[in-house]
Amino acid sequence: MGVPGSYTEEAAVGYFKNEYELTGYPSFHDVVHRLETKEIRYGILAIENSSTGSVHQTLDLIREKNLYITGEAIQKVEHYLMAVKGSKLSMIKKVISHPQGLEQCGSYIRKNGWEIGTHVNTAAAAKEAAQKNDPYTAVIASKRAASIYGLEILDEKIQDNNHNYTRFVVLSGTKEITEGADKISLVFIVKNVPGSLYAAIQGFAENGVNLIKLESRPIWGEPWHYFFFMDLEGSLEDERIKRALSYLEIHCKSYRILGNYKKASFSMEVKNE
Amino acid sequence: MGVPGSYTEEAAVGYFKNEYELTGYPSFHDVVHRLETKEIRYGILAIENSSTGSVHQTLDLIREKNLYITGEAIQKVEHYLMAVKGSKLSMIKKVISHPQGLEQCGSYIRKNGWEIGTHVNTAAAAKEAAQKNDPYTAVIASKRAASIYGLEILDEKIQDNNHNYTRFVVLSGTKEITEGADKISLVFIVKNVPGSLYAAIQGFAENGVNLIKLESRPIWGEPWHYFFFMDLEGSLEDERIKRALSYLEIHCKSYRILGNYKKASFSMEVKNE
Repeated sequence: MGVPGSYTEEAAVGYFKNEYELTGYPSFHDVVHRLETKEIRYGILAIENSSTGSVHQTLDLIREKNLYITGEAIQKVEHYLMAVKGSKLSMIKKVISHPQGLEQCGSYIRKNGWEIGTHVNTAAAAKEAAQKNDPYTAVIASKRAASIYGLEILDEKIQDNNHNYTRFVVLSGTKEITEGADKISLVFIVKNVPGSLYAAIQGFAENGVNLIKLESRPIWGEPWHYFFFMDLEGSLEDERIKRALSYLEIHCKSYRILGNYKKASFSMEVKNE
Repeated sequence: MGVPGSYTEEAAVGYFKNEYELTGYPSFHDVVHRLETKEIRYGILAIENSSTGSVHQTLDLIREKNLYITGEAIQKVEHYLMAVKGSKLSMIKKVISHPQGLEQCGSYIRKNGWEIGTHVNTAAAAKEAAQKNDPYTAVIASKRAASIYGLEILDEKIQDNNHNYTRFVVLSGTKEITEGADKISLVFIVKNVPGSLYAAIQGFAENGVNLIKLESRPIWGEPWHYFFFMDLEGSLEDERIKRALSYLEIHCKSYRILGNYKKASFSMEVKNE
């Protein structure tokens, strides 16, 4: 998703190297639609940021659209403030970016007291700013976006948290288990009885399976009822995993395996320039 | 939070009746700051929508700022599309609202192919639209906001989901347990060992305590580590709850009770006009 210079493009280049031709689409829905019609083999979407949390549109689309996760990538995200040539930091009155970019630089923006505006993509915001040529409006995007669209950098690494990473998922319209898969994602709805969440995750605890993440999302049209998204370590071939999943059969109304794929390597020192 | 005509104001009026004087502030941070300085006795913020999920800024602020939840209110949210007099639905090119308002009307907006812009508050967006007098830009806000700011309604009940409710929390800078309290909110971080989440919630299952909600949020500066926010049924006076909480002592790095308050009454037929 996105135009050249987006963080997603950087993640896609890092993950696929030169194996596939890359094409950008303006929105999550566009990417998902192309996956459904099989116009594209894989789609790559941000799913979580280490400071601001999950990207719920991605979680919800994977579930709703019957997509599969076939891989993931982690990207260090450093935000730059940029504007057209002739602009200065002291002239800025408004700042535009993707809502996640704005949130990740929230303290910085509040300190400066700027008005905010959103865009569906950080790099697309940079592209538009270059066309509009308004010296009072800045954009938050990547260093590379500034260079691609000829904007001047007014301030650098403005994210509130220096340990700012985004995790991306590689999606496919067809099921596919990668070699050396060691991470499983699944979605489930527990039965509406007390203790059912506890009973559902009991199998993982008893079989020594490590839960990486557990996140709840509302069920559409059923106020205050939730899905759970879960990431765990392991392979679907593993007997311990099979035993753990059998608890979900019993204690869940429904569940679906979203994918079994290779965990992205991650260290706090990861750098992408 | 908000200006006259906001959904939060409606919730505040419903909850406090005429017991307290109401004042509006432009942002979450402003409300929280006034709670910390004790300029205001209570603050009311949206914490969850039944279609789009949790309002993470609220969850994070309650935890970070050592605030207490002293009550909650649920409000049916019906969105209206409005613009200045002389505008027509066919003229609209851009639509402005709070990100939650835009998300709750996402399908409707995509169907119309409009550009989107965000504002910190739906009613404030309506107020600004009335001043700017631009017939090509519409605002998504409450029916009451249209009437207060003299805007014309172009379309009604445009939310994607007719069962669209927002839950608000009443916050205080000081601990306070309401009479007849039957709901507890808490935040915890489990120890970094496999099975610790399971072990932490074991006490609730074994003591027959009903978990209403469990939600994870990233820990600032510690990528891929999470807090859990939990809502459950009961009173801190109850022996079963005391026994269940003793499990948290053992299996958590840290935990804090955010409040013990009266659950909002809710039925799908709730209507607020």
